[in-house]
Amino acid sequence: MVLILKNNPEVKKVDELLEKIAEMGLKTQVVGGASHTIVGLIGDTSHLIPEDFLHYEIVDTVQRISESYKAANRKMHPDDTIIDIGGRKIGGGTFSVIAGPCSVESEEQMKEVATDVKASGASLLRGGAFKPRTSPYAFQGLHGEGIRLLLEAKKATGLPIVTEIMDINTLDLFADVDVIQVGARNMQNFELLKALGHSDKPIFLKRGLANTIDELLMSAEYIMSGGNNNIVLCERGIRTFETKTRNTLDISAVPILKKLTHLPVFIDPSHAAGISWMVEPLSKAAIAIGADGLMIEVHNNPKKALCDGAQSLNPEQFDTLMKDIRRRVEFEGKTLA
Amino acid sequence: MVLILKNNPEVKKVDELLEKIAEMGLKTQVVGGASHTIVGLIGDTSHLIPEDFLHYEIVDTVQRISESYKAANRKMHPDDTIIDIGGRKIGGGTFSVIAGPCSVESEEQMKEVATDVKASGASLLRGGAFKPRTSPYAFQGLHGEGIRLLLEAKKATGLPIVTEIMDINTLDLFADVDVIQVGARNMQNFELLKALGHSDKPIFLKRGLANTIDELLMSAEYIMSGGNNNIVLCERGIRTFETKTRNTLDISAVPILKKLTHLPVFIDPSHAAGISWMVEPLSKAAIAIGADGLMIEVHNNPKKALCDGAQSLNPEQFDTLMKDIRRRVEFEGKTLA
Amino acid sequence: MVLILKNNPEVKKVDELLEKIAEMGLKTQVVGGASHTIVGLIGDTSHLIPEDFLHYEIVDTVQRISESYKAANRKMHPDDTIIDIGGRKIGGGTFSVIAGPCSVESEEQMKEVATDVKASGASLLRGGAFKPRTSPYAFQGLHGEGIRLLLEAKKATGLPIVTEIMDINTLDLFADVDVIQVGARNMQNFELLKALGHSDKPIFLKRGLANTIDELLMSAEYIMSGGNNNIVLCERGIRTFETKTRNTLDISAVPILKKLTHLPVFIDPSHAAGISWMVEPLSKAAIAIGADGLMIEVHNNPKKALCDGAQSLNPEQFDTLMKDIRRRVEFEGKTLA
Amino acid sequence: MVLILKNNPEVKKVDELLEKIAEMGLKTQVVGGASHTIVGLIGDTSHLIPEDFLHYEIVDTVQRISESYKAANRKMHPDDTIIDIGGRKIGGGTFSVIAGPCSVESEEQMKEVATDVKASGASLLRGGAFKPRTSPYAFQGLHGEGIRLLLEAKKATGLPIVTEIMDINTLDLFADVDVIQVGARNMQNFELLKALGHSDKPIFLKRGLANTIDELLMSAEYIMSGGNNNIVLCERGIRTFETKTRNTLDISAVPILKKLTHLPVFIDPSHAAGISWMVEPLSKAAIAIGADGLMIEVHNNPKKALCDGAQSLNPEQFDTLMKDIRRRVEFEGKTLA
Repeated sequence: MVLILKNNPEVKKVDELLEKIAEMGLKTQVVGGASHTIVGLIGDTSHLIPEDFLHYEIVDTVQRISESYKAANRKMHPDDTIIDIGGRKIGGGTFSVIAGPCSVESEEQMKEVATDVKASGASLLRGGAFKPRTSPYAFQGLHGEGIRLLLEAKKATGLPIVTEIMDINTLDLFADVDVIQVGARNMQNFELLKALGHSDKPIFLKRGLANTIDELLMSAEYIMSGGNNNIVLCERGIRTFETKTRNTLDISAVPILKKLTHLPVFIDPSHAAGISWMVEPLSKAAIAIGADGLMIEVHNNPKKALCDGAQSLNPEQFDTLMKDIRRRVEFEGKTLA
Repeated sequence: MVLILKNNPEVKKVDELLEKIAEMGLKTQVVGGASHTIVGLIGDTSHLIPEDFLHYEIVDTVQRISESYKAANRKMHPDDTIIDIGGRKIGGGTFSVIAGPCSVESEEQMKEVATDVKASGASLLRGGAFKPRTSPYAFQGLHGEGIRLLLEAKKATGLPIVTEIMDINTLDLFADVDVIQVGARNMQNFELLKALGHSDKPIFLKRGLANTIDELLMSAEYIMSGGNNNIVLCERGIRTFETKTRNTLDISAVPILKKLTHLPVFIDPSHAAGISWMVEPLSKAAIAIGADGLMIEVHNNPKKALCDGAQSLNPEQFDTLMKDIRRRVEFEGKTLA
Repeated sequence: MVLILKNNPEVKKVDELLEKIAEMGLKTQVVGGASHTIVGLIGDTSHLIPEDFLHYEIVDTVQRISESYKAANRKMHPDDTIIDIGGRKIGGGTFSVIAGPCSVESEEQMKEVATDVKASGASLLRGGAFKPRTSPYAFQGLHGEGIRLLLEAKKATGLPIVTEIMDINTLDLFADVDVIQVGARNMQNFELLKALGHSDKPIFLKRGLANTIDELLMSAEYIMSGGNNNIVLCERGIRTFETKTRNTLDISAVPILKKLTHLPVFIDPSHAAGISWMVEPLSKAAIAIGADGLMIEVHNNPKKALCDGAQSLNPEQFDTLMKDIRRRVEFEGKTLA
Repeated sequence: MVLILKNNPEVKKVDELLEKIAEMGLKTQVVGGASHTIVGLIGDTSHLIPEDFLHYEIVDTVQRISESYKAANRKMHPDDTIIDIGGRKIGGGTFSVIAGPCSVESEEQMKEVATDVKASGASLLRGGAFKPRTSPYAFQGLHGEGIRLLLEAKKATGLPIVTEIMDINTLDLFADVDVIQVGARNMQNFELLKALGHSDKPIFLKRGLANTIDELLMSAEYIMSGGNNNIVLCERGIRTFETKTRNTLDISAVPILKKLTHLPVFIDPSHAAGISWMVEPLSKAAIAIGADGLMIEVHNNPKKALCDGAQSLNPEQFDTLMKDIRRRVEFEGKTLA
């Protein structure tokens, strides 16, 4: 960490600052510039908050120079993390497609969709049993019954299942779930992240609508600091001024995350755009830029969907898309899981 | 709700659409324009999701025309909600200042700060026992012990206390707390909101960093739909491209919220700016524009604060500010609580 | 255009509103809903500003339902616009790469870069003679001399040239330039756009940092309404809260623009990311998602570049990238220009 | 400027970097940290672009530590700039209100509005003769005739006039205008700024929709570097994700600008909110937070306004507002101009 001091600081106040830093167990080195003096902090600063130094009136700006995430940092773990889910791999040279409806609605729906997406080549089945909805008056999911229906669909098709958790008190219901999803709105629900750090299940962690890439990595770090290293990161669009799409897909997050961390990185084109015809072009971009997989909403009757129908593909559209995805994944020298 | 259809839609498909709407128990009226046909939905549409109609290929855009919040809506409840906290009022013609440290650190600290802010005229005491921190390696709060220290400070000074909840499983610890805060990162933690709807404690609900005013009102609606109508809304800055301030205080949110809802509206100038000297000018603007109160961070030794020291005032600065606040509140014809 | 009225409007005021609209030469149709009344405007509303109706106190919201751009609208012109630049085509099934330095610095530099990028397969040469710089103290370009050096490089290599205009008074200097660029900061310099509408040169129009897709199309419309239909649109990143990249590339803009307009759409990965290693992954995504071309910064000595060295490739990096681009363009069934 | 190097850089490459910096005429000081090495640059770095150093592969991040604006910097000029406009002062302890219609429409309109706003206490008259409009099909202003009508209104009332320039070629028409406005969309039209640097007229410079405070100051610096120091800065809302207001007024910009620069700072509440009833609360906040003035749209018949009627006050509303403004300005210990 580097502290940049204001012009001509009082010597007494500089000494006071250096003393406090010494009390924290850190060493310092001081450089004098034409207009500013700089103090470099030497030692482990990962637990310090840069802004806290601004309370010293002689400090002008503070710059962190080493990342505050460790377990998630590729510098500490150069090789790609590969996650094994019942024999199916995520990450490395594998490309995976997670598909299924926004929310679990009925036994018939889940069996139909699961059979269809499996036939088209999806490697995992998704479906929401607990649904975060902006309005308390909107459908909130089938809860435990929804998970039961997902497990039946798994039994029928063999597809591992991914479903979202919203409350740590429901964790017992996820005992037979293969991958637990943390949604965008809970990306900084730190108590939930800590609890999942003690789980042995892979976690599918979505970036929040207004969270930076660094914050996404710090949320992964929360889970990893508890001992659970099986995390998949997912970019699903950020909130900007543009209104033609529901969110703005930050496609640049893929190469940046692949550089900063060893964790697999997915794209969710359905939520990013919020409209079904955009799923295809965004999927193509995601494959080309190096994502490790896609999460795509598929519904057997999108017009009747109880949530997010506008962004769901029907099984025929998904099947056509998967044929193209396979061709593109092979072009990139990867294997479709 | 209004559906705007694409150019020259097939009559058969329009009929199909009208039939589905009728199945939902709604009436329709159809208007033909030069370039578009418009379908008006008549009836209660508060549980519908506008985007879901986009899956009908003949639908071009959908516009909601009645608000989806009811309990929080000023149209349903024209008078200001006034909340009583141990005899102290929030809202109506009263202006309240909640003050105290970012986090509870020690008995000595809390007693000192509580005594100081009371003497300066604060009407409630704040202090974090559970701290949402971006990094798992940063100080996370004293938890139950922190609440105990807050209650001791309350006993010593008589100031009601406000403190943040992060996990519904800790609700028992809040039995003697006067106001429960929901932080910006948990504004859409819907399970937490639902649980608090069954509590009888006033809730201090902060706007999320990237949440719209409508979403803030819908989160209030979550709590109110459970039966708890004692909610204070708080604007604390939104995330934008500007970097000179930690967040951008959306001061316009105050008059807009006062128009749309009957709930009291506060400003948190400490978190909005992220730097202590900005607290004073932002507080002045908040009073002038009609806010019902302020939440201000005060620390007896900001340089030693374990979190957010950069934005805390020391007790002397707070005392000076309160003198000015009193003068301004009176100028606005309100009473300082 | 649709006006949605407030609850229970006074009949007298509705009549007054309908009369004013009739005075504008438009017809109206009125629909009564459960909670609102809706007025549909029938006729040409392209010159109306929706917000202006908000001054009628009975009007709650206004929704435009037909696009306000006409010449740029794909509905009016379903086929792709293909632009011919000295025999080289832009748009349709062709993929083009425009390459060259951020700014023209010397004769030697331009000749070297032009020869190199031509050898690697670029189809147009770029170089800035007039440079928009945030600081008045930074290098501002060689102006007329810069254009002369570009023309020499064109003579030597045969590559058509693209260069930016900042002031309409310099238009004479662009007499032999092949494509005139309008930079992001001038996207809404309407006087410049109008003047270029009377030019017969193709215009390369970059999206502004905080401009919506609709605004970009309206700026194209400014040029087209003057009679110049040869416009290439370029997405180069928008301003968001994320700081890991200089701007956030809005990759979704490509499919949306391709749907809304018949004009060719390019991506500028160099300015979007602001860092050279990101040019490759963003280029891959741009090709896959259906862009018609790329604008890439190449400098023979990026470390010595007088501007934007950080985002420039050197000729070897560009050559490697072009080999991959060729392979990908062919995979998409297009032809590299 | 400070360069932070990557872990364990090669000694040869560090030497190469230090040599290049020496060639630029700058001295360096090197500090070794636990995980990084830091290079401090000593000397005048105001013309350097921090990102350019990122092309050295051993450089990780670059931090500027002295501001790149000089003439506009309060450090260089601690006293407030006070601008004299025909005997009326702007800045210092004076508070000024600029009022008038969005666009000049007719002689009758201008005389009526000018007489009204003068009677209510406005100190300058505004009116647009050249209008930046998103659509080429919308009313673009009366141009020279508009300026003539403004000058007639000035003759009739004695109010100095403020009007916007969009094209430097029209500068002659502004010979008798008192203050030239540069609109938000032209804030980075650098050629226009340079030309106005050679003018002797005060410039009213509006912040762009997506421009940072630093960029606003750099645009002022462009004008000042040409010799014209009479600049008024104006915050008029920035573009964010919130849609309840047309833009988000960044009220924090006032205290920050007052700290960083000696130039007067105004607020434009009409454009910030885009809706007339918001002008009053935002004006109150602006006065309280320390702005030097307001620019307010007033139209004698807002429903008939050819542009931006939705945000205009009528003369009665403006008169009521001015009574309150006077009371508040006096409360702040300032004088209404």
